[in-house]
Amino acid sequence: MGNNVSIGLLGLGVVGSGVIKLIENHQEELVHQLGCGVNVKSVLIRDTDKARNVQLDQTFLTTNPDDILNDPEIDVIIEVMGGIDEAFQHILKAFSAKKHVVTANKDLVALHGPELQEAASRNKCDFYYEASVAGGIPILRGITDGLSSDRIQQVMGIVNGTTNYILTKMNTEGSTYEAALQKAKELGFAEADPTADVEGLDAARKMVILSRLAFSTDVALEDVEINGIKNIDLEDLQYGDTLGYTMKLIGFANCHDQQVEVNVQPTFLAKSHPLADVKNEYNAVYVYGEAVGETMFYGPGAGSMPTASAVMSDVITVIKNIRLGINGRQSLAPRFKKELKTPDQQFGKYYLRLHVKDEVGAFSTISSLFHDNNISFKQILQTPIKKYELAEIIFITHKTSFENFTKALKLLRDLNVVLDVKSYYKVEGDVENDVAGVNKTL
Amino acid sequence: MGNNVSIGLLGLGVVGSGVIKLIENHQEELVHQLGCGVNVKSVLIRDTDKARNVQLDQTFLTTNPDDILNDPEIDVIIEVMGGIDEAFQHILKAFSAKKHVVTANKDLVALHGPELQEAASRNKCDFYYEASVAGGIPILRGITDGLSSDRIQQVMGIVNGTTNYILTKMNTEGSTYEAALQKAKELGFAEADPTADVEGLDAARKMVILSRLAFSTDVALEDVEINGIKNIDLEDLQYGDTLGYTMKLIGFANCHDQQVEVNVQPTFLAKSHPLADVKNEYNAVYVYGEAVGETMFYGPGAGSMPTASAVMSDVITVIKNIRLGINGRQSLAPRFKKELKTPDQQFGKYYLRLHVKDEVGAFSTISSLFHDNNISFKQILQTPIKKYELAEIIFITHKTSFENFTKALKLLRDLNVVLDVKSYYKVEGDVENDVAGVNKTL
Repeated sequence: MGNNVSIGLLGLGVVGSGVIKLIENHQEELVHQLGCGVNVKSVLIRDTDKARNVQLDQTFLTTNPDDILNDPEIDVIIEVMGGIDEAFQHILKAFSAKKHVVTANKDLVALHGPELQEAASRNKCDFYYEASVAGGIPILRGITDGLSSDRIQQVMGIVNGTTNYILTKMNTEGSTYEAALQKAKELGFAEADPTADVEGLDAARKMVILSRLAFSTDVALEDVEINGIKNIDLEDLQYGDTLGYTMKLIGFANCHDQQVEVNVQPTFLAKSHPLADVKNEYNAVYVYGEAVGETMFYGPGAGSMPTASAVMSDVITVIKNIRLGINGRQSLAPRFKKELKTPDQQFGKYYLRLHVKDEVGAFSTISSLFHDNNISFKQILQTPIKKYELAEIIFITHKTSFENFTKALKLLRDLNVVLDVKSYYKVEGDVENDVAGVNKTL
Repeated sequence: MGNNVSIGLLGLGVVGSGVIKLIENHQEELVHQLGCGVNVKSVLIRDTDKARNVQLDQTFLTTNPDDILNDPEIDVIIEVMGGIDEAFQHILKAFSAKKHVVTANKDLVALHGPELQEAASRNKCDFYYEASVAGGIPILRGITDGLSSDRIQQVMGIVNGTTNYILTKMNTEGSTYEAALQKAKELGFAEADPTADVEGLDAARKMVILSRLAFSTDVALEDVEINGIKNIDLEDLQYGDTLGYTMKLIGFANCHDQQVEVNVQPTFLAKSHPLADVKNEYNAVYVYGEAVGETMFYGPGAGSMPTASAVMSDVITVIKNIRLGINGRQSLAPRFKKELKTPDQQFGKYYLRLHVKDEVGAFSTISSLFHDNNISFKQILQTPIKKYELAEIIFITHKTSFENFTKALKLLRDLNVVLDVKSYYKVEGDVENDVAGVNKTL
């Protein structure tokens, strides 16, 4: 049996405490797999006086990062302190000191992943970040190892637990957005400031990381079109339900002929879609590969122990690599120079809700407009709203280009009979033919 | 860039043809990942005259295994010929000749996996078999790498597409078992002789492989309690549906205090369980880890290209190992000597359907019997069947030991008021409290 491997831990918050507990509780499993023990030699904290939910002798704690980054006995750095600039500098310093790094920091990896990978490779160091996407779900390995032989065409992720919890409450209990968010905060599924979650930025960061690995190209955060869930109307959820769809905040990434599209937006999923049943704070990533077809990876997207388990699976890989002498030799440079799809290359189905004048010829005018723009429908649902002398019409289109759809939207807004474009959303998956509302009214 | 790696393919059936196609179509991806090309140098077939769905020059084909196993230019053997004895001998010979082996052969791995692994390690060869369980789903890696830091407590698998297709048809369309089986045959989801599938043997083989890796102990096929789906009654499916459950053929493996239980049986899953929505021929494996909690891996469990993709992901791993010089160094010996749970150590919830005399005091007699055996109920549904002057009662128990449950069953059968024990099944997951039938009648 070899000598213990010593770890330096940067950060002792929710994930850091989980790491400490997991190493303590699973030491025998670690020894079995690695042929050596694993111990945390020192921990970087900001405040030595703060109460912690793990018991650690004060001698393990330091507020000076150099105590860890310059310690020649430490082989592996776990970065779970969060934030960007400081963490970035610490990790670069770790690589210079030939230490391997495991991080759970999605903000950092989304922004600086390629640079960090490059620094790691230059120093023959490992750099792993499984925990940065979808917490405990081993999805990055699923893509890079499990589906390594395949050509991945699409990745769709429910990669933000806060928004999935809120949408589940709205869907199943008819809660308002505000009430659901409040409940999420009470349960610890939403932070005091939930902006990054509800506006879609957190999901976008994860989609950047997933897209890079799935398509072997350098996607950046600014390439991602982002729409959050703040303006979702309960009425749309109810109409969607009637037509056979469930609303989810979906991170969508598609690659065709090496052209890439990445976005985050509220999306209506057919209830038969594997992602449609992913409820509450759970995460799941759906991966479509040319050979394998539909796969999905489901599990907890956050939390102390799940995230710590992903961190420690990376640490195990690093230590196995140390013992095999192969660190820093397994990362791949991107295969393609990034090329983003233009709107005429982006295809989708759409849900559209209109308020129109309740008068003869209104529907015909609208359907001519769609016809002229090569947009046809799979489902239509029309309800008169007598009180206001208007009709509410919901369309689910067949597949069309985003360019055609936005063009039609603009023309619709100029039509005299169209009083309001209430909402529109992307649609994924196919409803069965016998779902209520399929061409119900026409 | 290195020299091409040459592969010897044993078998050119459904999976073998997929492998040939995948290597042709994804050559650029392979070269990117490996720094070298991959080519199939020769293929073992039984009959040179048989029509094939891949075009291969006759010079690549041989009916003599030694042409491949003795060829010094071949580094990697892919075994997709199926069967046990011949394949076993070929693989042992391959290891003796220091060739690495990838197989999709679940029958063989379930029976001889540990011996083959031992022969591989002795010869410093790699031995991988991702495709042997759940086709295209990278579940073995999910367990050995993705969740490597965790202590896995339970694995539940829908690992047989044929039976899942049949049960889906029975559940959603009310098809009889026979009609659903016939439909499965027509669609190619069931073989001409479906015995191994419908009787649960195929699922049992996969559960053996999963259990070994999840619990690091040598589970054997004879340790698995197996019940198939042939005797499932549509009435039970309907009662289950009313009470909030869906019937699935579940491979169940549990490990607690190093004691293991593995079985395959029709099981009622609460509709909220992640596996409950896995439909048609799809497979999924649910893994519960101490740290990570609930995870699930979903995808196609069979088929030419999905299975070939799993085979080729293993081949990629082997070739990466060749280039890193680390073959045969990553397998782990079992950590525990196998210890199987006895019936008093096996716990579960049960669905039980009885026919009882429709007379005063019958229900009270029965409930006393359960009470005396420490069995209590979560749900009860009672329906009078007037025509025969009997009542049909369905019980869903709370958690109890298998020993208590079988003892109660035996005593029930001796009761005067019990006319018939119609059926009983294991139950997994919790239904919501507001599901129809919760203590509906009492």
